[in-house]
Amino acid sequence: MRAAIFNGPRRIEVGDRPDPVIVEPTDAVVRVVMGCVCGSDLWYYRGESPHELGPIGHEFTGVVEEVGADVDTLARGDFVVAPFTYSDGTCPHCLAGVTSQCVNGGSFGNHGIDGGQGEAVRVPLAGTTLVKVPGSGHSAETMRSLVALSDVMCTGHHAAVSGGVKPGSVVAVVGDGAVGLCAVIAARRLGAARIIALSRNPARQALAREFGATDILAERGDAATAAVMEMTGGIGVDAALECVGTNQSMATAFSVARPGSIVGAVGAPHGVVVPIESVIFRNVGLRGGVSPARVYLPELMDDVLAGRINPGRVFDFETDLDHIADGYAAMDERRAVKSLVRIGTI
Amino acid sequence: MRAAIFNGPRRIEVGDRPDPVIVEPTDAVVRVVMGCVCGSDLWYYRGESPHELGPIGHEFTGVVEEVGADVDTLARGDFVVAPFTYSDGTCPHCLAGVTSQCVNGGSFGNHGIDGGQGEAVRVPLAGTTLVKVPGSGHSAETMRSLVALSDVMCTGHHAAVSGGVKPGSVVAVVGDGAVGLCAVIAARRLGAARIIALSRNPARQALAREFGATDILAERGDAATAAVMEMTGGIGVDAALECVGTNQSMATAFSVARPGSIVGAVGAPHGVVVPIESVIFRNVGLRGGVSPARVYLPELMDDVLAGRINPGRVFDFETDLDHIADGYAAMDERRAVKSLVRIGTI
Repeated sequence: MRAAIFNGPRRIEVGDRPDPVIVEPTDAVVRVVMGCVCGSDLWYYRGESPHELGPIGHEFTGVVEEVGADVDTLARGDFVVAPFTYSDGTCPHCLAGVTSQCVNGGSFGNHGIDGGQGEAVRVPLAGTTLVKVPGSGHSAETMRSLVALSDVMCTGHHAAVSGGVKPGSVVAVVGDGAVGLCAVIAARRLGAARIIALSRNPARQALAREFGATDILAERGDAATAAVMEMTGGIGVDAALECVGTNQSMATAFSVARPGSIVGAVGAPHGVVVPIESVIFRNVGLRGGVSPARVYLPELMDDVLAGRINPGRVFDFETDLDHIADGYAAMDERRAVKSLVRIGTI
Repeated sequence: MRAAIFNGPRRIEVGDRPDPVIVEPTDAVVRVVMGCVCGSDLWYYRGESPHELGPIGHEFTGVVEEVGADVDTLARGDFVVAPFTYSDGTCPHCLAGVTSQCVNGGSFGNHGIDGGQGEAVRVPLAGTTLVKVPGSGHSAETMRSLVALSDVMCTGHHAAVSGGVKPGSVVAVVGDGAVGLCAVIAARRLGAARIIALSRNPARQALAREFGATDILAERGDAATAAVMEMTGGIGVDAALECVGTNQSMATAFSVARPGSIVGAVGAPHGVVVPIESVIFRNVGLRGGVSPARVYLPELMDDVLAGRINPGRVFDFETDLDHIADGYAAMDERRAVKSLVRIGTI
């Protein structure tokens, strides 16, 4: 099969990989329909995070080609969404709702596990990982939103859940990447009354508004903090969602969060120093981390299929597998929020 | 009146201060019955944190001597417990349950506010701060437990609440000072099934067991982590309570906390670097900070008066106001967990 291969920073090449086969009885082989490029893929693309040379991509939808003997909830021909981590559903962490920390789990597209940026994937623990999409004949818009459920929508949702967003909440979203934009969707979906999106990019500002942001702030750093405090009568927001992973974005999230609230943080951290003084002397908490996407997928898929949310709108660049490097470059150069990669057909 | 005065590191002296009088109509003047020395007092005593020269002590019980015109919930002669911060009960932070961040509030024993280590205190916002103790003729044991409600018991409780301790929880308490020991009481009170107390001091180990610890670990650092992981089948604890404030104690709390759990941290931080990698890649959260003691006081007082909890057992050194420096020295030299200062009578 053909697959994108990471050959080092800025070297995304498409080459041949062995066709995946069933190895464990809990495996499935999935033929990929859509993949995409994640903001977190840019970290190794830019040489800022380590990544094994080899297959890449942790987000995909696809069609089940074959299942192992122990997989009884899926069958050949099922159309599925893969959460970006696989999990057994039965370990203590899965049972506690943290499937992203499954003791037998892992991520796609690294450490020898096939990536979603390729024609096919051997999916470990398939029966407790893949989520079957009901129905057929999904629109192009729905198809894009389904692949957005693999990671970014579930990750934005995790930021909102971790930050404790509830009906009536005043929320600030720090970060206007795909995850930040999905966090806006999630905050709206959870009933937030006011959603302040920090963005200085007109296209992203417009998308944030479309997703439910009530206020847009182009300021950054201290100016952003001052603006949020002004907007909230000096109180701060009920939940600050950190969707970038830089020290500045974390500092901003903490500084706009009201006492007693929680910063919901999902950005992969690079140089972040948590302001412990704010945790202790301002009573601002911190939760988040790697989204247990498998837990969130069913409810979010319901909303996608019913047309209530449309996270696929974050894709503003489309390409095919042969030209996937263009998708990385477009995001790296901030010409694109998120790149969709069309690989196969249902 | 006579009061303890901070004249610089290791210089706790008793001198004369003006008798407190009603300044604002929301004030009360309270004649102190018992005060005590807090672990956090040791930071400035040792010169490791700044503190204004002047009155000290933020924990006390006392008898109301006089109330301002706007104080209608208290009367002369009432026996009261003061939470260590005063608060108006009506600002957005108070209404959100974070009285420790009251926009009109502050702490006792600093910045010109009388301290509890003196004969009398002008209490600002008295009607919404002081908690009247019902009944009379309280035993010596109850009297000690009531002054423990000023700070340490409420702070240990805040660690447990912040860490999300609930019936059946497996809890680790990092720190065997008065707050850590009270966190054991709080965890037990909230229904924890297993409470692992980290302590290498035999007297504190015994008190932790008396308070409800089911397991004692004398190990520290990596050895402590390994022991907790072994005890929990490799899963980690449902809640880790950080009751010290050092980098090692925070690191230990994070390393023993299971994915999805929250470190409940109440130690005043000194050199703490929050392990952001654990927050993101192990899904361990962090909450805590300055306890909203005023919120917790009524329910904890009920339990003290009913004899269900006995946090006054943390006092293992008693002195009077004239000899208060001995109480500081005993704690500084770790001869005492916590020093009680008998100042007046009911």
